[in-house]
Amino acid sequence: MSKLDFNITIVGLGLIGGSFAMALKELNPKNIWGIDIDVDVIKTAEEMKIIDKGYINPEIPLKKSDIIITCIYPELTVKFVKDNMDSFKSGAIITDTAGIKEKLIKEIYKDIRDDLDFIGGHPMAGRESQGLEYADKNIFNNANYLITPINENKKDNIEKIEKIIRLIGCTNIIKLEPKRHDEIIAYTSQLPHIIASALINCANRGLDTKRFVSGSYKGATRVAIINSDLWQELIMDNSVNILKQIEIFENSIANFKKAIISNDKEKLNFLFTKGSQKRKEIS
Amino acid sequence: MSKLDFNITIVGLGLIGGSFAMALKELNPKNIWGIDIDVDVIKTAEEMKIIDKGYINPEIPLKKSDIIITCIYPELTVKFVKDNMDSFKSGAIITDTAGIKEKLIKEIYKDIRDDLDFIGGHPMAGRESQGLEYADKNIFNNANYLITPINENKKDNIEKIEKIIRLIGCTNIIKLEPKRHDEIIAYTSQLPHIIASALINCANRGLDTKRFVSGSYKGATRVAIINSDLWQELIMDNSVNILKQIEIFENSIANFKKAIISNDKEKLNFLFTKGSQKRKEIS
Repeated sequence: MSKLDFNITIVGLGLIGGSFAMALKELNPKNIWGIDIDVDVIKTAEEMKIIDKGYINPEIPLKKSDIIITCIYPELTVKFVKDNMDSFKSGAIITDTAGIKEKLIKEIYKDIRDDLDFIGGHPMAGRESQGLEYADKNIFNNANYLITPINENKKDNIEKIEKIIRLIGCTNIIKLEPKRHDEIIAYTSQLPHIIASALINCANRGLDTKRFVSGSYKGATRVAIINSDLWQELIMDNSVNILKQIEIFENSIANFKKAIISNDKEKLNFLFTKGSQKRKEIS
Repeated sequence: MSKLDFNITIVGLGLIGGSFAMALKELNPKNIWGIDIDVDVIKTAEEMKIIDKGYINPEIPLKKSDIIITCIYPELTVKFVKDNMDSFKSGAIITDTAGIKEKLIKEIYKDIRDDLDFIGGHPMAGRESQGLEYADKNIFNNANYLITPINENKKDNIEKIEKIIRLIGCTNIIKLEPKRHDEIIAYTSQLPHIIASALINCANRGLDTKRFVSGSYKGATRVAIINSDLWQELIMDNSVNILKQIEIFENSIANFKKAIISNDKEKLNFLFTKGSQKRKEIS
């Protein structure tokens, strides 16, 4: 018997959905189906044999699915669950992969059927490139995976989701409240994306920047290659937290500025040394 | 006959000096010597066979060296050249590898002998780790290498330095004025290091940051692992330029902030899209 004796549906066969399908297909679930709005993507996923069958119409697979994993934008996640509320199989577990949690979960729980369980999830995995063609089951290897259970979720169902996450390769699963998730992620994920964009947006038009950079600049700006639509949504839906984190960061930059202006070598050295130590702790 | 029919001395057998020695030794120069203040480092470099012989006393190799490459801190570079002014062989070319140029070159040209040529150089290569044990000839592969010749430099000598740089693997050599070098580097190298440190210095003490990060945070903070003494010196010696660049960056961050505060989705999307495009240009 398979380790995954479920019918699973992946909603959205992009980078994350495609990677999920790849990783899960290898675990030999009862059935794995895909839903996408793009016929060509469905065809490709079927040809890659990472899903058993793909559908444009969600109703068909949802009726028989025990576990549904949505891999689409946050607002679209809410819309998908609401629009298809009548199609889910009784007892189904739905989990998402969006980068924000509090607002999304609140929206869904306004209307969710009592016999369904929606468990918020956030794989801390990604790539600069979008789409099924960049999907890779290895993106989950040793990645952090945050889940945000609430009182409404059944213990057994949370355990099932945790089992799946572990099976696809995420070694570090952290459970935390949706609100706390959004506070933390504003710092550890959203702020670095804004900084990378803000740094490269300073690039002088007259200068062929490429010829004057090394690894530090490339590394600092790597995630400026971004899905703008998605990240705009993630940031706006978490604006209070992100504004707070930007302010903390501005103060941190101001500390460097003050040390430089006052030629305080000891202070500047201290700031660099502190940063160095803190960075080594997460290596 | 070797492509490098010179006696070469490397001053400072750390990450950059050691890497230089490795790369040059393979090109079979007439002789390659090393100078360091640490007997153990000299012994290791000799055992690694990346230098023919190492010296604590600079006088011995300098008297016979056609080319001297200093791989030490900026202020120490100035001191080394001044302290050993009488030891250099007539006609010798000295080049350095420090990350700032204008002040350093001015200082050296206050006292340089007429029969010597000092040509400023800056390999855009590095690693987070310091010391000979991390030296690697491949750090130069396809790296940018900036050189900052001045009117006092002889054309032939500039060409010799360019030849060496090309032979160790740097494909992109850019010649520019020392002043311009320092302006540009404040943005493309010094600012990313300050940002990385400032970002990680925001990390909340109460939070086990490591468990909540993905590639974006790790990439954005990678160069926070830094040689604090060296970077303090580089930044302080280029303070006017770096303060200007910090200010430009602060304004760039403020653009994001404004868009978020006013819930201007179009503007935020535009900022991300612009960053994405600019980043792709340097990939």
